[in-house]
Order: sequence, then structure tokens, then C-alpha cells
Amino acid sequence: MTNKNKAKDAIIVAASRLFRLHGYYGVGLSEIIKESGTAKGSLYYYFPEGKEELAIAAINHTKEFVSENIREVIEGVEDPVQAIQTHIYQLSGEFSKESILGLPIGTIAGETALTNEPIRLACQSAFEDWQSLYIEKLIASGYSDKQSKDLALVINAMLEGGILLCLTKKSGEPLRTIAEQIPLLLKKEK
Amino acid sequence: MTNKNKAKDAIIVAASRLFRLHGYYGVGLSEIIKESGTAKGSLYYYFPEGKEELAIAAINHTKEFVSENIREVIEGVEDPVQAIQTHIYQLSGEFSKESILGLPIGTIAGETALTNEPIRLACQSAFEDWQSLYIEKLIASGYSDKQSKDLALVINAMLEGGILLCLTKKSGEPLRTIAEQIPLLLKKEK
Repeated sequence: MTNKNKAKDAIIVAASRLFRLHGYYGVGLSEIIKESGTAKGSLYYYFPEGKEELAIAAINHTKEFVSENIREVIEGVEDPVQAIQTHIYQLSGEFSKESILGLPIGTIAGETALTNEPIRLACQSAFEDWQSLYIEKLIASGYSDKQSKDLALVINAMLEGGILLCLTKKSGEPLRTIAEQIPLLLKKEK
Repeated sequence: MTNKNKAKDAIIVAASRLFRLHGYYGVGLSEIIKESGTAKGSLYYYFPEGKEELAIAAINHTKEFVSENIREVIEGVEDPVQAIQTHIYQLSGEFSKESILGLPIGTIAGETALTNEPIRLACQSAFEDWQSLYIEKLIASGYSDKQSKDLALVINAMLEGGILLCLTKKSGEPLRTIAEQIPLLLKKEK
């Protein structure tokens, strides 16, 4: 990796972390520059369009990071119910760590969905990518196309809402309660 | 209602609307004063502690508003599955209106849960109040205490996540898909 790419990556990683913690409007560019440890000019060099362009790169970064995490868990557990449950239990474990991160992209999506079309589309693409991983797993496990698509959306919604409840309650318990309902929800339609 | 209370209420209503649309950090006090149509001094008179104090009043206002809405729907439909479904279908209808509002409190919760304890507690209280309404309905319909509590949390999480997906997709379809899964989820435990 060249030094140039290193600086760009450091900016994206810092921005992703800060946007997750405080949302889009809660973070200033100067804070991102400071946290990234790069020179002031780097941010404007790599992201000449400014904050919106950087937010989209940060959302895409978080999208990939979360996708890899989902893929790793659900490829490692054959049974679809157990695979989804394992994924949710792992997420719930994050809330007993000291370095809690915020919602992957939920806060930024909520802040901007009605007012910033390019950011909204980046968030939509992330949600679709994550859902497609669940769909793939469910179809491979013999669920119909329709049920797989519906359940993937519901799992995605439960996780977004569940992470929000965990953050607000400062506890992983809401996600654990959600994990326990997965067997009921994932009953195959006849 | 006195004129004084009118001004205070106008500020709270304006703040609730703007926080829902843009989140806590996306809204300035001057914007709230402007939208409320009150004199500049009123906001500082009623909320001497400033933005945080006003945000808590706005969250409590939204909490009551949503609670009344939940109560009205679930008291009007006897069957618990149909009652929850009716509630979700009604919510999904909001996304075909021109004047879409954002998440009731989800965005502000996501922005501040890790950094502002008084706002986090106000959000936690709202989530608990909404869940208690579902719990009451489920217990009255013969579900066990434990299952009622667990399902109420899952319903709340699905709705928060579902509204976020609807906002991001600019469509009520995610909530309708969630509503269709309610019969599976609300199967009584033996």
C-alpha cells in the first residue's frame, strides 16, 4: 500500500468510527482530520467534494466491514437458525466491551434519508447487501425465494432496532432476546 | 391554555418535528425558534439549560404522542395478532404521505446514547413505555409474562428497524413485510 492510500484509508476509518458514534451532523471535518492523524490538506485532496463524499466512502467501508462479518459467521454454521442466532449473539457481545461502537449506519441513515439523496442511496445499498447475504443462506437451506427475501428484511430490521435498543439500554440483552425468537420466526412455510 | 403555555408548547412541537427529521446535531436552536414562531427569548426562558433540556422535553412529547397512537390501535382491535398488524400497517401508510416524519426518537437515541446520559435515559423511558403497552395487550390475551415481555421488545425493535428501512427505501413496503411475519412470531408458547 502506498503512503497516499494509507492516508486515504486512515481518513475513511476515522470518519466511519466517528459517524457511527455521533452521526453525520455530530462530527466535524476537523475532528476527523485530527483522529485520522493525517495532514489537514489530505482530506480535501482525497475528498474534494467534502463531507458528503467522505460520508459515502465511510458508509461503503462500514458496509464491507459488516458484510464480511455476516459472511464469516453464517458460512461457518450450517443450520440457518443457528447461524443467524450465532450472528446476533456475537453482536450482543459487543455491548459488554468497553469500546462500544454505535449503529453501523442506522444513525446516519435516520439523519439524512429525507434530505440527502446520495447518502440515502449509499445506506440503501448497504441494507440491500446485508439482506442479500441472509437471502443466500436461507435459499441454500431450502426456504422459498419469497420467504427468504421477507425473512432477510425482517432480520435486518430486528438487528437495526435491536442494536439501537442495546445502545439505549447499555446492555446486550435486547439482542439476546431477539436471538431467542429466531426459531419461531424462521419456521419454514409449507 | 395560557399564552405562556402556548409558546412553550409551540417550541416543544417544533423541536420534536425537527429532531425527528434531522437528529439532535442536525438542528440549531435558531431553526427551532424560527419554526415555532415564538420570540427569541422564549426558548431560553422556558429551557434555561438550552438544547439538552429542550431535547428531553421533545422526546417526552414524542413518547406520549406515539403511546397514544399505539393505545388507540391496540385497544380497538381485540385479537393481539391483528392489533399489532393493524398498528404496523398504519405506520407503513405514513410513507406514502408527502409529509413523512423521521424515526420518532431512534435517530436522536443513536446519536447521543454513548455521549449524553440525560438524553439516553429519556429515550430508554420512551422505549420502555411503548413496550409496556404491547406487554399489557399480550398478557390480557393470555400470553405468559415472560413471552409477553420478550415479544414486546422484539416488536419494538422490528418497528424501529422497519421505520428506518422505510425511510431509507422511501417506501412503506418494509413495514408491510414485517406485519406479515407477526402471526409466526406471536405464536403462543405451550
